[in-house]
Amino acid sequence: MQGQNQQQAYDRGITIFSPDGRLYQVEYAREAVKRGTASIGVRTPEGVVLVVDKQTRSPLLEGSSVEKLHKIDDHVGAASAGHVADARQLVDFARQQSQVERVRYDEPIGVRTLTKSVTDHIQQYTQVGGARPFGVALLIAGVEGGEPRLFETDPSGTSNEWKAVAIGSNRGDIQEFLEDEYDADLSVDDGIDLALRALNEGREDALSGDGVGVGIVDADTGTYRELAADESQSYIDDIEDAADDSDDDDEE
Amino acid sequence: MQGQNQQQAYDRGITIFSPDGRLYQVEYAREAVKRGTASIGVRTPEGVVLVVDKQTRSPLLEGSSVEKLHKIDDHVGAASAGHVADARQLVDFARQQSQVERVRYDEPIGVRTLTKSVTDHIQQYTQVGGARPFGVALLIAGVEGGEPRLFETDPSGTSNEWKAVAIGSNRGDIQEFLEDEYDADLSVDDGIDLALRALNEGREDALSGDGVGVGIVDADTGTYRELAADESQSYIDDIEDAADDSDDDDEE
Amino acid sequence: MQGQNQQQAYDRGITIFSPDGRLYQVEYAREAVKRGTASIGVRTPEGVVLVVDKQTRSPLLEGSSVEKLHKIDDHVGAASAGHVADARQLVDFARQQSQVERVRYDEPIGVRTLTKSVTDHIQQYTQVGGARPFGVALLIAGVEGGEPRLFETDPSGTSNEWKAVAIGSNRGDIQEFLEDEYDADLSVDDGIDLALRALNEGREDALSGDGVGVGIVDADTGTYRELAADESQSYIDDIEDAADDSDDDDEE
Amino acid sequence: MQGQNQQQAYDRGITIFSPDGRLYQVEYAREAVKRGTASIGVRTPEGVVLVVDKQTRSPLLEGSSVEKLHKIDDHVGAASAGHVADARQLVDFARQQSQVERVRYDEPIGVRTLTKSVTDHIQQYTQVGGARPFGVALLIAGVEGGEPRLFETDPSGTSNEWKAVAIGSNRGDIQEFLEDEYDADLSVDDGIDLALRALNEGREDALSGDGVGVGIVDADTGTYRELAADESQSYIDDIEDAADDSDDDDEE
Amino acid sequence: MQGQNQQQAYDRGITIFSPDGRLYQVEYAREAVKRGTASIGVRTPEGVVLVVDKQTRSPLLEGSSVEKLHKIDDHVGAASAGHVADARQLVDFARQQSQVERVRYDEPIGVRTLTKSVTDHIQQYTQVGGARPFGVALLIAGVEGGEPRLFETDPSGTSNEWKAVAIGSNRGDIQEFLEDEYDADLSVDDGIDLALRALNEGREDALSGDGVGVGIVDADTGTYRELAADESQSYIDDIEDAADDSDDDDEE
Amino acid sequence: MQGQNQQQAYDRGITIFSPDGRLYQVEYAREAVKRGTASIGVRTPEGVVLVVDKQTRSPLLEGSSVEKLHKIDDHVGAASAGHVADARQLVDFARQQSQVERVRYDEPIGVRTLTKSVTDHIQQYTQVGGARPFGVALLIAGVEGGEPRLFETDPSGTSNEWKAVAIGSNRGDIQEFLEDEYDADLSVDDGIDLALRALNEGREDALSGDGVGVGIVDADTGTYRELAADESQSYIDDIEDAADDSDDDDEE
Amino acid sequence: MQGQNQQQAYDRGITIFSPDGRLYQVEYAREAVKRGTASIGVRTPEGVVLVVDKQTRSPLLEGSSVEKLHKIDDHVGAASAGHVADARQLVDFARQQSQVERVRYDEPIGVRTLTKSVTDHIQQYTQVGGARPFGVALLIAGVEGGEPRLFETDPSGTSNEWKAVAIGSNRGDIQEFLEDEYDADLSVDDGIDLALRALNEGREDALSGDGVGVGIVDADTGTYRELAADESQSYIDDIEDAADDSDDDDEE
Repeated sequence: MQGQNQQQAYDRGITIFSPDGRLYQVEYAREAVKRGTASIGVRTPEGVVLVVDKQTRSPLLEGSSVEKLHKIDDHVGAASAGHVADARQLVDFARQQSQVERVRYDEPIGVRTLTKSVTDHIQQYTQVGGARPFGVALLIAGVEGGEPRLFETDPSGTSNEWKAVAIGSNRGDIQEFLEDEYDADLSVDDGIDLALRALNEGREDALSGDGVGVGIVDADTGTYRELAADESQSYIDDIEDAADDSDDDDEE
Repeated sequence: MQGQNQQQAYDRGITIFSPDGRLYQVEYAREAVKRGTASIGVRTPEGVVLVVDKQTRSPLLEGSSVEKLHKIDDHVGAASAGHVADARQLVDFARQQSQVERVRYDEPIGVRTLTKSVTDHIQQYTQVGGARPFGVALLIAGVEGGEPRLFETDPSGTSNEWKAVAIGSNRGDIQEFLEDEYDADLSVDDGIDLALRALNEGREDALSGDGVGVGIVDADTGTYRELAADESQSYIDDIEDAADDSDDDDEE
Repeated sequence: MQGQNQQQAYDRGITIFSPDGRLYQVEYAREAVKRGTASIGVRTPEGVVLVVDKQTRSPLLEGSSVEKLHKIDDHVGAASAGHVADARQLVDFARQQSQVERVRYDEPIGVRTLTKSVTDHIQQYTQVGGARPFGVALLIAGVEGGEPRLFETDPSGTSNEWKAVAIGSNRGDIQEFLEDEYDADLSVDDGIDLALRALNEGREDALSGDGVGVGIVDADTGTYRELAADESQSYIDDIEDAADDSDDDDEE
Repeated sequence: MQGQNQQQAYDRGITIFSPDGRLYQVEYAREAVKRGTASIGVRTPEGVVLVVDKQTRSPLLEGSSVEKLHKIDDHVGAASAGHVADARQLVDFARQQSQVERVRYDEPIGVRTLTKSVTDHIQQYTQVGGARPFGVALLIAGVEGGEPRLFETDPSGTSNEWKAVAIGSNRGDIQEFLEDEYDADLSVDDGIDLALRALNEGREDALSGDGVGVGIVDADTGTYRELAADESQSYIDDIEDAADDSDDDDEE
Repeated sequence: MQGQNQQQAYDRGITIFSPDGRLYQVEYAREAVKRGTASIGVRTPEGVVLVVDKQTRSPLLEGSSVEKLHKIDDHVGAASAGHVADARQLVDFARQQSQVERVRYDEPIGVRTLTKSVTDHIQQYTQVGGARPFGVALLIAGVEGGEPRLFETDPSGTSNEWKAVAIGSNRGDIQEFLEDEYDADLSVDDGIDLALRALNEGREDALSGDGVGVGIVDADTGTYRELAADESQSYIDDIEDAADDSDDDDEE
Repeated sequence: MQGQNQQQAYDRGITIFSPDGRLYQVEYAREAVKRGTASIGVRTPEGVVLVVDKQTRSPLLEGSSVEKLHKIDDHVGAASAGHVADARQLVDFARQQSQVERVRYDEPIGVRTLTKSVTDHIQQYTQVGGARPFGVALLIAGVEGGEPRLFETDPSGTSNEWKAVAIGSNRGDIQEFLEDEYDADLSVDDGIDLALRALNEGREDALSGDGVGVGIVDADTGTYRELAADESQSYIDDIEDAADDSDDDDEE
Repeated sequence: MQGQNQQQAYDRGITIFSPDGRLYQVEYAREAVKRGTASIGVRTPEGVVLVVDKQTRSPLLEGSSVEKLHKIDDHVGAASAGHVADARQLVDFARQQSQVERVRYDEPIGVRTLTKSVTDHIQQYTQVGGARPFGVALLIAGVEGGEPRLFETDPSGTSNEWKAVAIGSNRGDIQEFLEDEYDADLSVDDGIDLALRALNEGREDALSGDGVGVGIVDADTGTYRELAADESQSYIDDIEDAADDSDDDDEE
């Protein structure tokens, strides 16, 4: 009871600390992230893979309009989880930063620099009053100096760089799966395969080409592109074939 | 009781998260949408159909003054559900965006671009303090590059693209009806018919030409127009005839 | 009890939604309208009639200073019900809009356009914090392109066009009377007669030329004017004569 | 109890409506008016009379420094009741408006126009947050086009024109006295006499020339002036003589 | 209990009225005045006398640094009671007003005009939010057109002109003493004598030249000056001698 | 209980008065001063002495970084007690004022003028909302026209001039010691000796050259300087020798 | 209970004092520091050593992206503990100050000057409303005039200079270890050794080159650099060897 009341006392104000040094509004914004469908990033030597869950509420909804994968710049893509409209704001902010950098220095923005701009923007909403934090996490994937980079931003304005990471619903299980299965020498195809299998861990329904989104930043070309639904489907089919084979193996 | 109290603690502030990551003011604004009469959109290859419920409180009220259908630009129309005065603000905002785009680029605004502008505007009212969210949803129908497009905006600032969708009172039943009856190859006439029948699902009174509004964006001409009351009535008559025929059939 | 408490929780903040999607401050502003004496509008093919209740608290009060009828422009008049000082603000706002339009386009403002300006202004006070809604409703009567128009504005910023309508105290009974007695082919004299009889429905005291105000927008001349007390009295006399005749008839 | 609590819930916020459509802060400001000593205005064909109660707390206080009568312009005077410092603000505002009008149009401001300026100013403090309403009422007396005019302003920003009116402490009894005794054909001397006798109604102590203030706007000359204490005293003496005569009569 | 609770409900907000029309914050600011040591003003035909209580907390404190008497301009002095730092703000404000007036009109500011400027400044802090009222009262003494003037300002922004007046601690008793002993024909010396004896009424310790401050505005020269401690002491000695004489008389 | 609750009601708001005319936030800021280690000022004809307690938490902490003594200008030093970061703000403010004065008038700022600037700055934080008061007191020591001056500022914005004064922890006992031992004819050396002995009154640990800071403004040279740790130590040694001698005396 | 309630009353407001003169929000921000992993600074005659705990949550997280060590300028580095995104803000602020100083004076910023800029910035967030304090502490290490300097900033805006100091989780134990083991004549290598052993005090897991960060400001070269993971590992190996030797010794 006491704990309950005490918590209530601190979590209403946006910009204040609790007696144990926590910022409840930021922690609740993290809950908003968990309420979103999952997004997964996998970094391989050949490039970075982003896979998002796009399962739709109604067959009449156009899956293509579900905003989970976002092109930021030629060489950077992002996947989001959480409050959809908040994600759009951060993505727009990131695009503007990229454009500004290009205009100013005539070269593509560094992925780390871009991530820092975004997280600085997020931090402001956790310290200055008059607004709530952003209820969204981003995976920012890109190529910088030929190197694939994969960053995560969270609602506190912290960023981390990952080999492979999941955000959104069911993060715990998916991340555990990634930790078990990740290999530093994956090909991009392997990376897509790993991410799709990880996503499958947290779902009841079968995966489908329409129900997922796949984005790739290629290290060689330094460009981001999203797979068409049929391309995604073929990866899913391969996984299922492999699973069948595996079942066959079991039977043998 | 506990749950009740806890909820009360979070739903008074506009811009803060609840411990489970929800924005109650946004959810309550969605309730304001449900309190409005229904609006329905149906996309067909020939164009997009908007049908709205305009039933009036008093026979002395001019039905034409009920603000449910709105021309945004030559090639874009919108239907609203929820707080009437809020809808007018968003419609005005959309019209200005269209005009600005025309002046700046000398070409009609894209339907997706327009929708994004509107939802970005909506999002601001959910994050920054000092104002409440918009208590209204819009269906934005238009033609873009010859293609019919139908978008929905909600009070959180999320947009979705639909083949067919309902907003406002009785949304659940109407959407279910649309999912059962929708066919991708409908003509515009079929679309009007489908939407009117869907609207009829959620009503006790019979439909009348005065009590509904019908707007059409034609894919060929790329123009939005609203039907006169007698035009609408003739569609309603057709439906009733068909229903009678069907009854006749039953009797046979 | 629960309902009572829950309502209290939401009605203190100006700009927030209740869990069922209502804006209590706007609804309370509507109560302020109901606390005001009644105003009635009747549209006829010959023009629009505004009749207001001006009964005064004290015989020493100058009835002419009771602000219920307002000239907005040559061709537009308004009647108000509710918070008197708020009404004056909206009337001033409407006059400025009319003047601006005249100066800018060298022609009289459209009645619908004017009404939209006023209701947009009203809406702002229901969404942005730092002020309360306007506690007043207006009937805006005018001629536009030779056509008589009669609009109502309410504290939410919604407008409606009416054939005949009442605002303020006892609205329900008066509106019912209007619905029973209204005829689309009334002369202006009939309209005054109808409005005065409707007003009489909701009063205990007898009507008097001093205690009512009558404004007319004439469709032919396109001008608004207010009747003198003796002119109003003669209409009242006619009604009473007719009532006596009717009593005579009854006796026969 | 319930009523008590409910009221408390609404009367703390300046700019919000109660569920029954009232603005409690404005009503409380009216109580501040009632806490002030009385001021009375009487309009006669020859001019307008203002009489104020200036009874002082201490014999060492200079009665002339009690701010109850105020010259606004050559042709306009005002009497106040309520919060003294608030009255001074409104009086200053009125003087500035008069000066501005004179400079702009080279003619004296209309009394009605002036009153409207003042009440518009008052209204702003009842709708926009961040300040409290003015806790004062004014009687504005002047001559306009040769006609004597007498207006009252209240804390809501409403104005009314009166033949005779009282504000401040004991308003009810004084107003009743005025309604009984007022005659449209009074001379200015009669008007002073009436106002002094009315003021006497609500007092325990005898009137004295020092303890009252008398201001007159003369219709002929169109100028405002205040009586000296001995002039006021002679009017009081006359009243007392008349009362004695009347007593004599009674005895006869 | 009820009264207690009700009061608490209103006294927290700076700028709002209580249901009985009071401004509690202003009344509490008056309590801050009463917590200050007393200051006394006495007006005589020859000039105005200000006497202040400067008793210090510690013998190590420099009495000259106790801010109770303030020179505003050559012809105006002031005495304060209440919150010391607030007094300094008002005194600075008054000095600026004096300087501005001198620069603008090349003549000394009128004492009444100066007082009005100060009280207008005070009033703003009682109506507009975001600040508290000034917790101080001033006695403003000066010469205007050869006439001695003595004004009091209070935390509500009201001013009064006095023949003799006390502010601060023990005001009631001192004022009563002044009312008993004041004579309109006092010399300045008599005025100092009266004020010192009045101050003595409310004290347990004996007066001393160090423990009081005496300021004089001379009507002839039109200049303000403060007495040195030994000058003050000689007045105190005279009073004590007179008291001894009086005791002697008693013995006779 | 009642008193407890009542106090709680008023001490949360920064800028409001309690019913008894107190400003609790200012009083609490004074508590913050008492939580700081002590600082002592002693004025002698030869100059002003400042002695501060710099005892450190850890042997690894550099005592020189403990901000208790501050050079404001060549001729002015200050000692602080209370919130360290607040003290730095006021010291910076004082330095800027000094520089501005030097640039503007080409002469050193007066100590009284400087103190007034600082206390005016402090006062603003006690009246205007949006910030808390400064939780610090200063002793400002300087030479003005060859005269040594010693001022104290407190969190209310009041200043006082002292012969000798203590601020911070244990103020009561130290001040009592100063009142007992102070002599107007002290040399600077005596002044340091007095201040160190006074500081010793309120301590359990023995004084050390590292654990105290000593600043001197010399009246002749008009310059401020701080003693090195070994200089301070030699004064401490002298005190201890004297104490031993005194013990010897006792034994004799 | 009472204490609990009383505390709750004061810790919600950012910028107000508690009755005992404390600023709870600042104290809670200090708790946020304690929630962060530890950082340690050790000053030696040869330079300053910063050692930070970088243990990561997941093997897939890139340790290099954990923001604990920050280069501020060529000659200054910093280590942080607490809220990560807040640290980044302060580090950016420090970098800007350094750049500004270089541009303005064409020489490196002094370490003390830099620290003062940062703590002034921090202080503002503890006094002015509308934002929360920074939930982070910094160790700022640099060389100034050839001298190694080590400063700590805390959330109140206080700075201190240290010979050796710890911030963050387990500060108490680590600081005690430092006080026991610190020697003023350490070489930089000894300093690294000391800091790593101190860090080991507060950990359950064994240290690893990946799990710590080591930064050094060299007094001779006046430059800051961070060790690579293998360099750090070799220091850790040495410590373990020494510990083994020591165990051997014990056995002997």
